[in-house]
Amino acid sequence: MTEKIFPVAPDKLEEIIKEYPTPFHIYDEAAIRQNLRRLFKAFAWAPGFREYFAVKAAPNPYLLEIIREEGGGCDCSSLPELNLAHMAGVKGENIMLTSNDTPADEFQRALQLGAIINLDDISHIDFLEKNAGFPACLSFRYNPGAAVKGNDIIGNPLEAKYGLTHDQIIHAYRIARDKGVKRFGLHTMVISNELQEQSFINTARLMFKLAAEIKEKLDIKLEFVNLGGGIGIPYRPEQDAVNMENVSAGIKAAYEEIIIPAGLQGLSLAMELGRCITGPYGYLVATAIHEKQTYKNYIGLDACMANLMRPAMYGAYHHITVVGKENAPHDHTYDVTGSLCENNDKFAIDRQLPKIDRGDRLIIFDAGAHGHAMGFNYNGKLRSAELLLREDGSVKLIRRAETQADYFATLHFEGSKF
Amino acid sequence: MTEKIFPVAPDKLEEIIKEYPTPFHIYDEAAIRQNLRRLFKAFAWAPGFREYFAVKAAPNPYLLEIIREEGGGCDCSSLPELNLAHMAGVKGENIMLTSNDTPADEFQRALQLGAIINLDDISHIDFLEKNAGFPACLSFRYNPGAAVKGNDIIGNPLEAKYGLTHDQIIHAYRIARDKGVKRFGLHTMVISNELQEQSFINTARLMFKLAAEIKEKLDIKLEFVNLGGGIGIPYRPEQDAVNMENVSAGIKAAYEEIIIPAGLQGLSLAMELGRCITGPYGYLVATAIHEKQTYKNYIGLDACMANLMRPAMYGAYHHITVVGKENAPHDHTYDVTGSLCENNDKFAIDRQLPKIDRGDRLIIFDAGAHGHAMGFNYNGKLRSAELLLREDGSVKLIRRAETQADYFATLHFEGSKF
Repeated sequence: MTEKIFPVAPDKLEEIIKEYPTPFHIYDEAAIRQNLRRLFKAFAWAPGFREYFAVKAAPNPYLLEIIREEGGGCDCSSLPELNLAHMAGVKGENIMLTSNDTPADEFQRALQLGAIINLDDISHIDFLEKNAGFPACLSFRYNPGAAVKGNDIIGNPLEAKYGLTHDQIIHAYRIARDKGVKRFGLHTMVISNELQEQSFINTARLMFKLAAEIKEKLDIKLEFVNLGGGIGIPYRPEQDAVNMENVSAGIKAAYEEIIIPAGLQGLSLAMELGRCITGPYGYLVATAIHEKQTYKNYIGLDACMANLMRPAMYGAYHHITVVGKENAPHDHTYDVTGSLCENNDKFAIDRQLPKIDRGDRLIIFDAGAHGHAMGFNYNGKLRSAELLLREDGSVKLIRRAETQADYFATLHFEGSKF
Repeated sequence: MTEKIFPVAPDKLEEIIKEYPTPFHIYDEAAIRQNLRRLFKAFAWAPGFREYFAVKAAPNPYLLEIIREEGGGCDCSSLPELNLAHMAGVKGENIMLTSNDTPADEFQRALQLGAIINLDDISHIDFLEKNAGFPACLSFRYNPGAAVKGNDIIGNPLEAKYGLTHDQIIHAYRIARDKGVKRFGLHTMVISNELQEQSFINTARLMFKLAAEIKEKLDIKLEFVNLGGGIGIPYRPEQDAVNMENVSAGIKAAYEEIIIPAGLQGLSLAMELGRCITGPYGYLVATAIHEKQTYKNYIGLDACMANLMRPAMYGAYHHITVVGKENAPHDHTYDVTGSLCENNDKFAIDRQLPKIDRGDRLIIFDAGAHGHAMGFNYNGKLRSAELLLREDGSVKLIRRAETQADYFATLHFEGSKF
């Protein structure tokens, strides 16, 4: 069970809305900090433990700055993401570039920033050398193929575009060493939004064995193993969050069983968690503007899938509460919709909720990762603002809402003044 | 069978790329004009036939201007879409607002532009009256519920958030008439991307019968029936395009059978086609930048799902050719990927293609509708330029590519200069 409680009192929320009209995303700074502290504490045993936050999940420099202050770095996979990390003061090897089908300018920028570069393919060794040169620390992304089953979200590794095969990765370290690279890491990412603790522990065992094999075959002592991200969050109240302490204990046991005997003492552990760092601590706040009764009962919000794509795109569940009616009987069945001209623009289908009136504020939970970031402008919809609920209870605008001028910015059309 | 031929010669394409680097969308003006002329000719029998182009499909004012010049109007469902229509010189009742869960400002702007307003719900009569007032010509969107089966794309009408039920719509006309509205239309949209000609003819019959019933019950002579859009295009070469002449003939027969005897002579016909107007005449041009062999063979492009979401989002087929290798043996099996950090960022899976080398230009077909328009900035990906191939063979930039400055435009972060 996971309690779904919005951290802002109703009257405070109305004050915020006076200044920043709905819809908006709001992030809970205190909760994000607390969450990171718990993560770092859980992995305190691991030498040089690093969390490279998956910037893709919440690409806002104010959030990245909070993560940096708590000791986290950034995992980036595009040029703008590298620049966001830089903006947020994340430096050098606290940045990792984990990209695929990578253009030259990304490699160049990563090198300039002193980032660790994590190569997705054996052919990228030459491409990197020709187009940018090697970083001080080079990593390779492992795709275990049939050795891991994957899950529904990330798919079967055999069908995944990412990473090197086992034989390629052994060969790749040899080539890179022969080209003069001295420091190495190893990376994988085989799960996504997974709540089974054992999955991560299994990933760690697989990776530790590969690290030991690399030591044995090539006499290369890896500096770090990056287990990737993929730890899910309990979107549904009846689900439990992953217990990080349990995951840590399982990984520690594997470390002691495999890494120490392999002579790899001091090997660092890294992760690139995104969703479970900020996901539960971001909320989409919207207002009910229409009520409609046809073959079903609909509540229309001022938010739409441009603000949160997951329900429309994946049929994903996001918990919804109605401010002030949290404890009212949930005796109405609604489809909660946005106004985008696509029938799948629904935040919830056949959801049991209290009676909703026009003007009610709805809180859509777990929108703190892959929420605002995935928004599009389809149908002329504009992306909303992002707010930060600070530790002292004050609220800061950390991204303004888009305007029509933004929407038209890439057009040069006579008469585009209107 | 549909021939898939890119309208630009290879050497000409290289010249274009020198000025506008890949990836970009390019639209064929001559083909769009020809297509519209064929549509208007096919429906020349229909009194006051109107095509309200679904702006959502290709929201570029230069394209809307071409459509206007050929006699088309605009179907809009957001404030920016209304403004795009206005920019393109589309005026008055050549604009239709077909929105759902509609905010007040959309109604206000539509009224200001003299557009026809097409209401999605019976409750919107009051909402419109209070927030904007009534337009000269008011329409209602009909949701036939169990009377129509729908298709996989638009879904079952019983589950669709759109429109009024049969009893509501009869009631709605009565209310609106009593409130003083004098001119009325009727609208529906029950299919999407459908290639079966009979579907549209069935829709027309259903709507004509409803128009006759409204005449009989309320003595209201509708000015127009809008059959909506939803005519698909042959994404696969083995598919055939819908024959508009056949569709027209079927609708004409229904008109003569139902409309004339009902005393509704002169009733206008309208459509809001989008996909089949511009879809086949827009192309996404990309360059192969990586080749990767792991458990499968991958070709990595400089385009990604931010440029064309349909394959990743729906698993949709888009035809691909390799410039200069159109007639080479298609003896290689590739996954054609983008660089977005999502495993579903693939333009094609297990596609038979000629051997592709780095630097090859790939043409992704049928990207002229719901292509550029659906792009997002997830993972820091920037949306590409749009070009117009003019009738005289020259090329015009009709939307510039996004820059990092656009991506960061809604941020105010110290140090956001980089």
